[in-house]
Amino acid sequence: MSIIIDSGRVAEHNAQLRAGLDADYEALGGMLARRGVDIEHLTEAAQRFAVALPSWGVGTGGTRFARFPGRGEPRNVFEKLDDCAVIHQLTRATPGVSLHFPWDKTTDARALRQQAEAHGLYFDAVNSNTFQDQVDQQHSYKYGSLTATSAATRAQAVAHNIECIELGKALGSKALTVWVGDGANFPGQHNLRGALERYLDSMRDIYAALPADWLLFIEHKLFEPAFYATTIADWGTSFACAQTLGDKARCLVDLGHHAPNTNIEMIVARLAQFGKLGGFHFNDSKYGDDDLDSGSINPFQLFLVFNELADAAQRDGAAFKPAYMLDQSHNVTDPIESLMSSAVEVQRAFVQAQLVDRVALRAHQEANDALQAAQTLKQAYRTDVSAILAMARVRNDGAIDPVACYRHSGYRARVAEARPAKAGASSSGIV
Amino acid sequence: MSIIIDSGRVAEHNAQLRAGLDADYEALGGMLARRGVDIEHLTEAAQRFAVALPSWGVGTGGTRFARFPGRGEPRNVFEKLDDCAVIHQLTRATPGVSLHFPWDKTTDARALRQQAEAHGLYFDAVNSNTFQDQVDQQHSYKYGSLTATSAATRAQAVAHNIECIELGKALGSKALTVWVGDGANFPGQHNLRGALERYLDSMRDIYAALPADWLLFIEHKLFEPAFYATTIADWGTSFACAQTLGDKARCLVDLGHHAPNTNIEMIVARLAQFGKLGGFHFNDSKYGDDDLDSGSINPFQLFLVFNELADAAQRDGAAFKPAYMLDQSHNVTDPIESLMSSAVEVQRAFVQAQLVDRVALRAHQEANDALQAAQTLKQAYRTDVSAILAMARVRNDGAIDPVACYRHSGYRARVAEARPAKAGASSSGIV
Amino acid sequence: MSIIIDSGRVAEHNAQLRAGLDADYEALGGMLARRGVDIEHLTEAAQRFAVALPSWGVGTGGTRFARFPGRGEPRNVFEKLDDCAVIHQLTRATPGVSLHFPWDKTTDARALRQQAEAHGLYFDAVNSNTFQDQVDQQHSYKYGSLTATSAATRAQAVAHNIECIELGKALGSKALTVWVGDGANFPGQHNLRGALERYLDSMRDIYAALPADWLLFIEHKLFEPAFYATTIADWGTSFACAQTLGDKARCLVDLGHHAPNTNIEMIVARLAQFGKLGGFHFNDSKYGDDDLDSGSINPFQLFLVFNELADAAQRDGAAFKPAYMLDQSHNVTDPIESLMSSAVEVQRAFVQAQLVDRVALRAHQEANDALQAAQTLKQAYRTDVSAILAMARVRNDGAIDPVACYRHSGYRARVAEARPAKAGASSSGIV
Amino acid sequence: MSIIIDSGRVAEHNAQLRAGLDADYEALGGMLARRGVDIEHLTEAAQRFAVALPSWGVGTGGTRFARFPGRGEPRNVFEKLDDCAVIHQLTRATPGVSLHFPWDKTTDARALRQQAEAHGLYFDAVNSNTFQDQVDQQHSYKYGSLTATSAATRAQAVAHNIECIELGKALGSKALTVWVGDGANFPGQHNLRGALERYLDSMRDIYAALPADWLLFIEHKLFEPAFYATTIADWGTSFACAQTLGDKARCLVDLGHHAPNTNIEMIVARLAQFGKLGGFHFNDSKYGDDDLDSGSINPFQLFLVFNELADAAQRDGAAFKPAYMLDQSHNVTDPIESLMSSAVEVQRAFVQAQLVDRVALRAHQEANDALQAAQTLKQAYRTDVSAILAMARVRNDGAIDPVACYRHSGYRARVAEARPAKAGASSSGIV
Repeated sequence: MSIIIDSGRVAEHNAQLRAGLDADYEALGGMLARRGVDIEHLTEAAQRFAVALPSWGVGTGGTRFARFPGRGEPRNVFEKLDDCAVIHQLTRATPGVSLHFPWDKTTDARALRQQAEAHGLYFDAVNSNTFQDQVDQQHSYKYGSLTATSAATRAQAVAHNIECIELGKALGSKALTVWVGDGANFPGQHNLRGALERYLDSMRDIYAALPADWLLFIEHKLFEPAFYATTIADWGTSFACAQTLGDKARCLVDLGHHAPNTNIEMIVARLAQFGKLGGFHFNDSKYGDDDLDSGSINPFQLFLVFNELADAAQRDGAAFKPAYMLDQSHNVTDPIESLMSSAVEVQRAFVQAQLVDRVALRAHQEANDALQAAQTLKQAYRTDVSAILAMARVRNDGAIDPVACYRHSGYRARVAEARPAKAGASSSGIV
Repeated sequence: MSIIIDSGRVAEHNAQLRAGLDADYEALGGMLARRGVDIEHLTEAAQRFAVALPSWGVGTGGTRFARFPGRGEPRNVFEKLDDCAVIHQLTRATPGVSLHFPWDKTTDARALRQQAEAHGLYFDAVNSNTFQDQVDQQHSYKYGSLTATSAATRAQAVAHNIECIELGKALGSKALTVWVGDGANFPGQHNLRGALERYLDSMRDIYAALPADWLLFIEHKLFEPAFYATTIADWGTSFACAQTLGDKARCLVDLGHHAPNTNIEMIVARLAQFGKLGGFHFNDSKYGDDDLDSGSINPFQLFLVFNELADAAQRDGAAFKPAYMLDQSHNVTDPIESLMSSAVEVQRAFVQAQLVDRVALRAHQEANDALQAAQTLKQAYRTDVSAILAMARVRNDGAIDPVACYRHSGYRARVAEARPAKAGASSSGIV
Repeated sequence: MSIIIDSGRVAEHNAQLRAGLDADYEALGGMLARRGVDIEHLTEAAQRFAVALPSWGVGTGGTRFARFPGRGEPRNVFEKLDDCAVIHQLTRATPGVSLHFPWDKTTDARALRQQAEAHGLYFDAVNSNTFQDQVDQQHSYKYGSLTATSAATRAQAVAHNIECIELGKALGSKALTVWVGDGANFPGQHNLRGALERYLDSMRDIYAALPADWLLFIEHKLFEPAFYATTIADWGTSFACAQTLGDKARCLVDLGHHAPNTNIEMIVARLAQFGKLGGFHFNDSKYGDDDLDSGSINPFQLFLVFNELADAAQRDGAAFKPAYMLDQSHNVTDPIESLMSSAVEVQRAFVQAQLVDRVALRAHQEANDALQAAQTLKQAYRTDVSAILAMARVRNDGAIDPVACYRHSGYRARVAEARPAKAGASSSGIV
Repeated sequence: MSIIIDSGRVAEHNAQLRAGLDADYEALGGMLARRGVDIEHLTEAAQRFAVALPSWGVGTGGTRFARFPGRGEPRNVFEKLDDCAVIHQLTRATPGVSLHFPWDKTTDARALRQQAEAHGLYFDAVNSNTFQDQVDQQHSYKYGSLTATSAATRAQAVAHNIECIELGKALGSKALTVWVGDGANFPGQHNLRGALERYLDSMRDIYAALPADWLLFIEHKLFEPAFYATTIADWGTSFACAQTLGDKARCLVDLGHHAPNTNIEMIVARLAQFGKLGGFHFNDSKYGDDDLDSGSINPFQLFLVFNELADAAQRDGAAFKPAYMLDQSHNVTDPIESLMSSAVEVQRAFVQAQLVDRVALRAHQEANDALQAAQTLKQAYRTDVSAILAMARVRNDGAIDPVACYRHSGYRARVAEARPAKAGASSSGIV
């Protein structure tokens, strides 16, 4: 565990930047006070915010054309956990880790859980994988998994999901996320309705295996790997399935899984309204499921999503608690750096959404004053809350500038030595 | 009524083309027979096919930039009915007419119904209009109708819809189509959830006013006139609303109302599976709600929609009978010509879908033979069924070549004389 | 002229808000100083920034479905100029006005120019209109204007453009913007190549009539009013035409005229690189040519456009001066309010782009440090420069809060009385 | 070479189907004759048609998530050539093979050329690869190749392209296709203009190495592997670069490399008009660069592309000869089957485009008769030319039903035995 960054280094880093932060925090505090806002409420909110890390995100990602490996990529779930620990240590915003099986399967769940606890981490939703064939696998998923025309293939895929629940139980997880790539590349390849009927049959078996306090997240995606018709392609299908399956089934929204021009914040509002919003896979995109860093392409959209979440929280109170997870592919950056800055971007949107003057907003909406309603959102969004986020980190023993502190720590060089590259292979499981 | 084309002219037209048609029909019949298909079954199916005409489609359409009027545009619902009669007379595929209120409101419903019956026409779903302000209207819909924050405006919009039901009852209609343009142009303008709650409240009142044998069609649309967030923007919202309202509420699919790249035939399959497919507004589009002639841009997609309908009909039998309507904007063509050829294109897709060898298709699907499954669809789609469609028209007393017969009839010149142009105004109500 | 807001009212407004602004400005100045940035340089830049107003933008816009008029809409170009004067008086960022003929045609150009000068306004690019038919027009543009198959129609359209140049000369304009809606709604309607050949022939005649110190802006648009194939649909076509025509021909980029997912800032970079960037029509959009308020949907994209402009300015120096114009449709807001806040949003993006540390950015780019390069942009973008913009307005005798000052002034109520509504008609010319 | 299908088997296959084909051909001939068309002209045209095969297409493709290998995948360029030979033997439409280096690099070019000649094949454009790192490569392309900020990396990429020309010369190729994935995943990662400047510098070096009778094809692509800004993203950039480089530089259009809703046939028309249309990578797509089988998703679009090509051929005569190549990824089908049926689909579109009555079309266009112009295209498109394509194959010694003949031949089983699977690896080079 000595590989993790020494807490003394973080304190040293903060000491150097503290005076500047204090000055900025005070300046911002004054500006907010003139708007009638107490900066401390926002800082406290920021301190409480958490978004889970994807275990598969700490390896370098790629495309079908190539993967360009980075240095020191983790070779197993224990090393992934080390990387996640560093991210949480510096940002204090990522206490949860979401595992993916069989990639993260271990024979020693107890050791894994102990390592997590030592790092102050816990295990969020577990993810099944029936979009790849494993070496020892009897039936191929080439033509589908939960929707396969072959009953044996479907049974194998169902069994794997139930195994994921068992693995998750041992680790303290409370949810299973099911994403399947099942679909067709040709018109006619699938009977579209038949495929969804088989999906529902398979999911009923998985649902039946859920512990009472678990949730089942259905993740939809417009396309890729299927390029003509994806069985769970949109929120409408996800919603209809979640309704069919029962109360523990919820819809998971990945920000990159929609048709061009889709208003994602409205989907969030709809799912919240109908009681089926399970959670998020945060990332950003310009074209398709680009899996870019959260907030890097359209930060206003991320804010608008959190504006809906703040509205739902105000309406539904403590009962409303969707799961927040990052899901990104880091092809040209150090994954630890991208995950740190992405966690901060999601946290930023959360804090900005707290800044919205909801009383004024509601009044403008009632009066059909579209311009002032829009400005009310924009005023909150325009506010540079960087000092609040940094102060929240300081108070939680994180780093004022996580990326700078990380770079200075030499962590990447240390793990590069400890983890020699495996030729060709991806540590993430995905290309 | 003498303005309508003389049936003798149609017979004369057919006499000239009949020998060629017979030869083509026989040649095609032979080709189909070699594939084990009896052409007569297809011709009989074609003879039974019907798609309703939109009363607003017989006027020239336009865009927000301009409308370039055509000659002899109908000035009231009686003249629209004349144009619809000509379309049906020549195609024999359009016995239904869908009215739009208040545009088509008449004080003499009895006379209108008699005129329709004389032409062999009946009235399909009626459409309400709360996306425009009328001269005598108390509350403006500038900021919404069924979703308006003003209770008085909502009540007015509800009352208009109930009036539409009354008007439809007098004409023999059995369904109300509700499309609202309600939505927001700015983030923040609407409370997204609040707007849908108000919509559902309003729709509950309308639903309560439905006769027992009526259906309520909910039409969704991604954007325009609202450009940031449309309240009923996608099939997921439409579906959730239809479920909330009750069994008589169904979803209406307009082919041009979806996000780019959307797989529309899959939406058709989903709505059929969950028992909520109400009907269609057929048209074609390349960019947005372009309202182009059916089958003019992507005829294969139209075929794939009918392939799903044929699958659903096979599964669900006589209980499955969604409403078929055209909904197009004819900006550069004679609307009568466009509606005739569009009706034929929809009919063509219907007949091609009947040609699909469903036993072979199912076998290829079960065997994951994607290539042959796709080819099974393509073989049906590739078949040029023009001779079948023409023969079906001949047998139903329509014209072999409706556009040629219409042009030769001089109908447009006659109505141009009878209906002098109104300066500037659109006869369709829309631009 | 007494209708314009009294300058004493503006001073009074500023006096009330001045202390708060000073405090915010000082706080921001301190934060920037800690980053090594002198706030005064930014304020001076903001003071110099200008974006032209579209005369057609001060009327209420609409869609093909409806237009919901506002109160006190201007009825002629003189009244439009009054509204533009108010916008400039309060924002001090909009000294130019872009006219549209024949909508803004006047027999008294001298009086118009005098009124403009009295308001501190000048005339920017003039716009021709061959996408609508005028009452007294001989040949219709229903089937095209500069691309029409009819030589007489093309000649008429060319003559109108040359008349626009003459009108512009009398007003002191230095550029003609040509946007044509010409295109096809059906595959086959146009010979695609023939249409562009005719376009180029027509444009050569217009180009030949340009004064030596004028520019010709070619504006492309993906679709609407043509829904299958627009002759000048993309920047590639615009660029090829500008090259063909000569050095005075340049490309104009309207932010809403692109295919979904298009990277617009890259088009800006390309046109700048190849010496053909003529100018902009600023607005924002989510779906198509939505003509929403600038920066209301994707403010980061607007910033990225200005980041490219700052890069080009750094490379090309004073020679690089594209024209900046707003082009929006205000359907649910007071157009004056929307234009004021939009001008401020464009100015905001301009100032934020000045804040980018270009030395650091270049270094990160050279080192392939994608994360820090991105953060360098984000740091500038995140900075809330509202106090800078307000201070720039104060120093230029504008209003600290233009919308509040405008609302308090009672201007809209005064013009509502002076300009009784014309039934039905749009003041903008567009729906 | 004995592995190839015995010609006797093909003859036997044809003998069984010949009577049916003759009957269909005669029936179709009659129908065409009644429209004034001589079927023999079309059959002769079909016999002359050729589209090149991509060597990388005979292996099974995949996505970044997974690749599901097929049986008997070729392990080297000689085995790939065998598969291509079978495709050409049965379709007689694919005499050219397009190689990709270093995947297809061989030390024995002479043997390769001899094998090709023995199969009646020749080598079409060669493709370079600087989007992947090779084992022995000095500089990584992780951050770009021809656009890399590192001069050494650029030089390496240029040298590879020049080596490709040398390899191509030895094989008789006459063109180099350059596709680079270079681009940025983050705003700010690239200086957009600097990247294109470096690209042009690199390309100038490659261009200088081109033999006098070679062409250089520039292939653009909107996104993937770069997800924010691709350096050669659209036809406008490709065109500007081709112009900058010189007459031998041309633009290559891949049907899947465009933004949603793009009118691709118009791009074809533009490039033809400006003399820069180099060639095509044919495939089909619904969402992105899906690389689906040609004509499987939107066959009418493929026809419209060929309609533009027929128009250009009529205008420009023999000088107009763009290169036709397939470029597809076969993830769920036997690649040989997909390539055979795709070649036939492209040939089908070519023949249908020959069927267009261009005199009538031009007349309708001149008369602005949009409806009849569209119907003129549709009549040609609707014609089922399957019998013509089959007869052309028979006359060229191909198979009436290539897929059936192939399946019956047992070729796949034979190569499955001869080519044991390599664990994990892709034979195509791409995932």
